[in-house]
Amino acid sequence: MSEPVKLSIVYYSSTGTIAEIANTLVAEAEAAGAQVRLRKAPELAPDAAIDSNPAWRANLEATSSVPEVTADDVVWADAVIFGSPTRYGNIAAQLKQFIDSLGGEWQQGLLADKIYSGFTSSATQHGGQESTLLALYNTIHHFGGIIVSPGYTDGSKFVDGNPYGTSHVDAQGEIKVGDVTRTAAAVQAKRVVSVAKALKDGAA
Amino acid sequence: MSEPVKLSIVYYSSTGTIAEIANTLVAEAEAAGAQVRLRKAPELAPDAAIDSNPAWRANLEATSSVPEVTADDVVWADAVIFGSPTRYGNIAAQLKQFIDSLGGEWQQGLLADKIYSGFTSSATQHGGQESTLLALYNTIHHFGGIIVSPGYTDGSKFVDGNPYGTSHVDAQGEIKVGDVTRTAAAVQAKRVVSVAKALKDGAA
Amino acid sequence: MSEPVKLSIVYYSSTGTIAEIANTLVAEAEAAGAQVRLRKAPELAPDAAIDSNPAWRANLEATSSVPEVTADDVVWADAVIFGSPTRYGNIAAQLKQFIDSLGGEWQQGLLADKIYSGFTSSATQHGGQESTLLALYNTIHHFGGIIVSPGYTDGSKFVDGNPYGTSHVDAQGEIKVGDVTRTAAAVQAKRVVSVAKALKDGAA
Amino acid sequence: MSEPVKLSIVYYSSTGTIAEIANTLVAEAEAAGAQVRLRKAPELAPDAAIDSNPAWRANLEATSSVPEVTADDVVWADAVIFGSPTRYGNIAAQLKQFIDSLGGEWQQGLLADKIYSGFTSSATQHGGQESTLLALYNTIHHFGGIIVSPGYTDGSKFVDGNPYGTSHVDAQGEIKVGDVTRTAAAVQAKRVVSVAKALKDGAA
Repeated sequence: MSEPVKLSIVYYSSTGTIAEIANTLVAEAEAAGAQVRLRKAPELAPDAAIDSNPAWRANLEATSSVPEVTADDVVWADAVIFGSPTRYGNIAAQLKQFIDSLGGEWQQGLLADKIYSGFTSSATQHGGQESTLLALYNTIHHFGGIIVSPGYTDGSKFVDGNPYGTSHVDAQGEIKVGDVTRTAAAVQAKRVVSVAKALKDGAA
Repeated sequence: MSEPVKLSIVYYSSTGTIAEIANTLVAEAEAAGAQVRLRKAPELAPDAAIDSNPAWRANLEATSSVPEVTADDVVWADAVIFGSPTRYGNIAAQLKQFIDSLGGEWQQGLLADKIYSGFTSSATQHGGQESTLLALYNTIHHFGGIIVSPGYTDGSKFVDGNPYGTSHVDAQGEIKVGDVTRTAAAVQAKRVVSVAKALKDGAA
Repeated sequence: MSEPVKLSIVYYSSTGTIAEIANTLVAEAEAAGAQVRLRKAPELAPDAAIDSNPAWRANLEATSSVPEVTADDVVWADAVIFGSPTRYGNIAAQLKQFIDSLGGEWQQGLLADKIYSGFTSSATQHGGQESTLLALYNTIHHFGGIIVSPGYTDGSKFVDGNPYGTSHVDAQGEIKVGDVTRTAAAVQAKRVVSVAKALKDGAA
Repeated sequence: MSEPVKLSIVYYSSTGTIAEIANTLVAEAEAAGAQVRLRKAPELAPDAAIDSNPAWRANLEATSSVPEVTADDVVWADAVIFGSPTRYGNIAAQLKQFIDSLGGEWQQGLLADKIYSGFTSSATQHGGQESTLLALYNTIHHFGGIIVSPGYTDGSKFVDGNPYGTSHVDAQGEIKVGDVTRTAAAVQAKRVVSVAKALKDGAA
């Protein structure tokens, strides 16, 4: 009997959209048989910035029990799904700061040969839904990772329409995460676990 | 009295969405005082492919009077707006084939120091609306061009939501080009003409 | 006893650099146990363009026995390695035209769940060595493919230095493909075959 | 008599390569008549990380008199040149953190209609020299900025070979910034100032 897939979901979320998608990914990945670690990147913003937006402060408190990510969460995993809101067509500095801290593990080859995937959200319809994930995937090439995005591998992908990863358009918080985005997250979680399982079993 | 801006709109369109956006760009750019050339990239697909899709054949006939683009249409211009449907997150081969034919002009520096911008369309919501334009803009760096995209420089950009260029989600022809896309095209045309005018006058 | 990995190497080459790297990939992949198809994208350029460059005509003749690629070469394969010279920071129109012809197979899901990788060459040192491969990988997301690039998974990668794929700087033909590029191709071929083998065995 | 171009050079540098290129940009831009602000992004790394690398600590001390960047340095400028070492094919978190703090100015449109350009460095030859700048330029589209990269607009660009911006391969500090990189920086500084001057005069 083979080992379960070890999956880390590593995200940064300011006002909670990304945290909510992360929760769906966790549930779906566990249902698909994976052992899952949910981890958040530490906040970098000053309190003044956080307090200027009640949703930001609320999410920080609501996710206070989620452990902060460490390098071991990547090293341990067979697969890693990174999540970040778009910040001007690129991932948030908070997630980037964690990634930039992985130099020691990178030099030892401890980030390579794993499966990586990504998810994002933006305020406007085409304001980083694709570009943010593509900028994230630049990094995976440097890691020596294997990139598994959803493509159009499920009929539902023609509904949410994003082959690069799960994404949500939130219109500054006005559009909540609903069935379309949750279905996209389910498809991505199952696909990542399934490919990671095949690769792990085949390499064993 | 200064010279009008010379603008070339160079597109490839199979089923007509891109051709329709191009027409809006022409009208708006002319209204903004530009002298405009509308040009299409030659078709590369075999008749069998074209005839498999009635909208493709119909658009080919409807645009038969649009001149095919030549290198001079780029060399002549102060600004060029390229349009292409997405083909798997990148521009169509038809437009790329025209671009690839510009080696002689590139070597002579005849493509540099102009303003360039782009527009696109895709069947699904996040199926190349950003990535296609970013792949196009790779090329502009090689040309030595100046990239002018719309950003969020007009209130309407928070409605169509694409800072990289005008884009339309057509759901395989089911969603026609409407006011949102036409407004985005108007904003982009005016911006390109306005920046090109300032640059031309300032460099004179 | 498991089935060998089926690998297609699909390239466009004008003056022969890409064709030469393709040959190294074939030899190394076969040595790693793969069953390999070598295929070229059909030429689109007019004879006048080809005859303006003796190396272009010579390569066309030298590779006349390489079969032209068909959709079946992708459908058949467990893994596909695409190769193209850079053309202004993006793949050549010839390779794009083949990719754009795959709509029927894409709609049937016949391009998904395979492993894809890429290689390139350019005249100048940073003139598309990364951007061309990243533009190519946009397309793989749309295919639902799994992207396997070399990263820095071998000590030699710190010599050739390209984590996105094998690449060669040819200085307009003055720098021939040598040991550094051939080693990079060997690492990439072995890696693609090895990951494809594990995935195939694990999914069986 | 027209106003001089106001140029901000905003960089993050750990071990000093980017800081050194920034100094060349300052000198060349001033020689071209610009009024220049040199600014650094605040360090985010903990002392333990900095002290693990003597060159990092040395650069931090050597640049202690360079003012830390504020939003006003972007708002004030006609043109901004951003510099960052590659961190896995993307800009460093330190620079990204500054960019992410510009939400207020972005909402007021204070980042738009300026000229932006970028420069970078990496340890290996194709380890982010292009991808880092392209990821940076994603952000400029969101700003509503005008992207001016060098292209091949000077004969020297065929020597350094990077159309996306000045870049330096430092081989972990073994290759110092020399004439090739300094010439590239000079070309980029002059080009940015010259285009900014024309645009400013033409828009006046």
